[in-house]
Amino acid sequence: MKRENVIALSGGVGGAKLADGLVQAVGDGRLTVVVNTGDDFNHLGLHISPDVDTALYTLGGLANPETGWGRRDETWTFMAALAQLGGESWFRLGDGDLAIHVERTRRLAAGETLSAIIADFARRLGISAHIVPMSDQALRTRVHCDEGVFDFQDYFVRLQCRPLTRSIEFVVAPDARPSSAVEQALADEALGAIVICPSNPYLSIAPMLAVPGLRERLRAAGVPIVAVSPIVGGAAVKGPTAKIMRELGVPVSADAIAHHYGDLLDGFILDVRDAALQGHITVPVHITDTLMLSAADRTRVAAETLGFAATLRQSA
Amino acid sequence: MKRENVIALSGGVGGAKLADGLVQAVGDGRLTVVVNTGDDFNHLGLHISPDVDTALYTLGGLANPETGWGRRDETWTFMAALAQLGGESWFRLGDGDLAIHVERTRRLAAGETLSAIIADFARRLGISAHIVPMSDQALRTRVHCDEGVFDFQDYFVRLQCRPLTRSIEFVVAPDARPSSAVEQALADEALGAIVICPSNPYLSIAPMLAVPGLRERLRAAGVPIVAVSPIVGGAAVKGPTAKIMRELGVPVSADAIAHHYGDLLDGFILDVRDAALQGHITVPVHITDTLMLSAADRTRVAAETLGFAATLRQSA
Repeated sequence: MKRENVIALSGGVGGAKLADGLVQAVGDGRLTVVVNTGDDFNHLGLHISPDVDTALYTLGGLANPETGWGRRDETWTFMAALAQLGGESWFRLGDGDLAIHVERTRRLAAGETLSAIIADFARRLGISAHIVPMSDQALRTRVHCDEGVFDFQDYFVRLQCRPLTRSIEFVVAPDARPSSAVEQALADEALGAIVICPSNPYLSIAPMLAVPGLRERLRAAGVPIVAVSPIVGGAAVKGPTAKIMRELGVPVSADAIAHHYGDLLDGFILDVRDAALQGHITVPVHITDTLMLSAADRTRVAAETLGFAATLRQSA
Repeated sequence: MKRENVIALSGGVGGAKLADGLVQAVGDGRLTVVVNTGDDFNHLGLHISPDVDTALYTLGGLANPETGWGRRDETWTFMAALAQLGGESWFRLGDGDLAIHVERTRRLAAGETLSAIIADFARRLGISAHIVPMSDQALRTRVHCDEGVFDFQDYFVRLQCRPLTRSIEFVVAPDARPSSAVEQALADEALGAIVICPSNPYLSIAPMLAVPGLRERLRAAGVPIVAVSPIVGGAAVKGPTAKIMRELGVPVSADAIAHHYGDLLDGFILDVRDAALQGHITVPVHITDTLMLSAADRTRVAAETLGFAATLRQSA
């Protein structure tokens, strides 16, 4: 049995880009993208799963290349009409994007699991990877700030990450556990590598590792776990990663990310701009240009990541 | 006290046109449009009130002049995306139209009454009339046909009224009663007339008269009740009125409508094309051109209706 299956842990935009590269690098059906649902929230009565939808849109070829979030060819008639009726307008929902929220909410209310719904959406969008939520139960990220405690989207979108972060809390449902699709992918004998995408370690990857049992199960899979650095040249490629590291008192550098993941890691992909930090990282390191500006970049970084993981498997 | 207030009972498009004319004919705040909610239904998890929205859009100047339903300047991105995800697409929801369904559903779930929500929407849309649902409790129209029993929208939209109608049933919630806004308008000493708009008597007006106590309260208001014929020249101006009359074994003629309303009526507005039927109608009749093709038509028919009601009040 060739160990060709890959699991990727992904948050939003940065993670989805690498996942898109991984889809090209592995065969049909061999990639499982485990997606953060700690950012999920109920808004206007709709169940919104921002990271799951970013994965679906990116891998389905529907992502908006300009904004990095939402759908391409989007219209905004709903938001204008909602504002006219006095509805909340701080969270921008495009007309096409609304469909996934309305249909997901309807199917959840009908008793389907989030996993089953997302699997069906992925199939209909022609996606060959398995896109699976980290859990079918609720685990919600709350950000403790100088100005108060905020639900994640409140902090991230409404307040645009302006308050100073003191700590990050995960409110875990009593029955929260890894989704069965995650368990299945981890138990598959063809699994060859686990990739932690260059998503925010504190806001996007940490919620996954907080799902009771998931961190242990990742380790128990017995395959190399490799993280791609979200810090490039001492700055975050996108989003509030650097700001949050500063506010949490962590140096904004790639080696701090490797240190943060600790014994979860078997290897670390360091950006070429940060090559000087290699000596501060205790696991094997692969150095490359990790910036993914083009589709070719995504495929190259993905292929290098998998190649690196394969060498770790052989040397184990 | 001048008895200048007017109550109009309205279903969908035809009723909303006359209500729009009545708004011009009476002073600000003096018109109450009581709207059928027997067609309300839950679709995709959203509470949809087709006739209420037609009233809001028509009186708010937002109606789509081409379709007769929905909003003008509408886009359809949501429906395309929903179809892509395998969602139900037989009921066409425009992107702008969605806003009213999502916001109404959210506010109902938060415990507000339909009346309060609609009143707020009307205020925000700059509508000077009071638009009030017939009831804040559920009364649902079901159509018994040769092919089975259908919820109203199933019959009306999905099946496009194709099955043969045998009878019409109203499923009334145990606590159903006229909304308090209807009660208030009926109790107002300034009330001078009640107008039954040229809506479908069987599908749009009958549900209102089936709200426990509403028919009696209309009569008890002690003001003239005048209906405008929805049958013109032996045919329905719009919709399935004529088809349903045939299938229920009722002659498709304006006098059959007057007979259908029976002792509820004090007067009847007959179209000039049906003037020959005047002798078959037992209440006072006013004859005019009732077709409302232009905004001027709406105002004229409204003014004539109110003038006729005033003569009935004086002769009482």
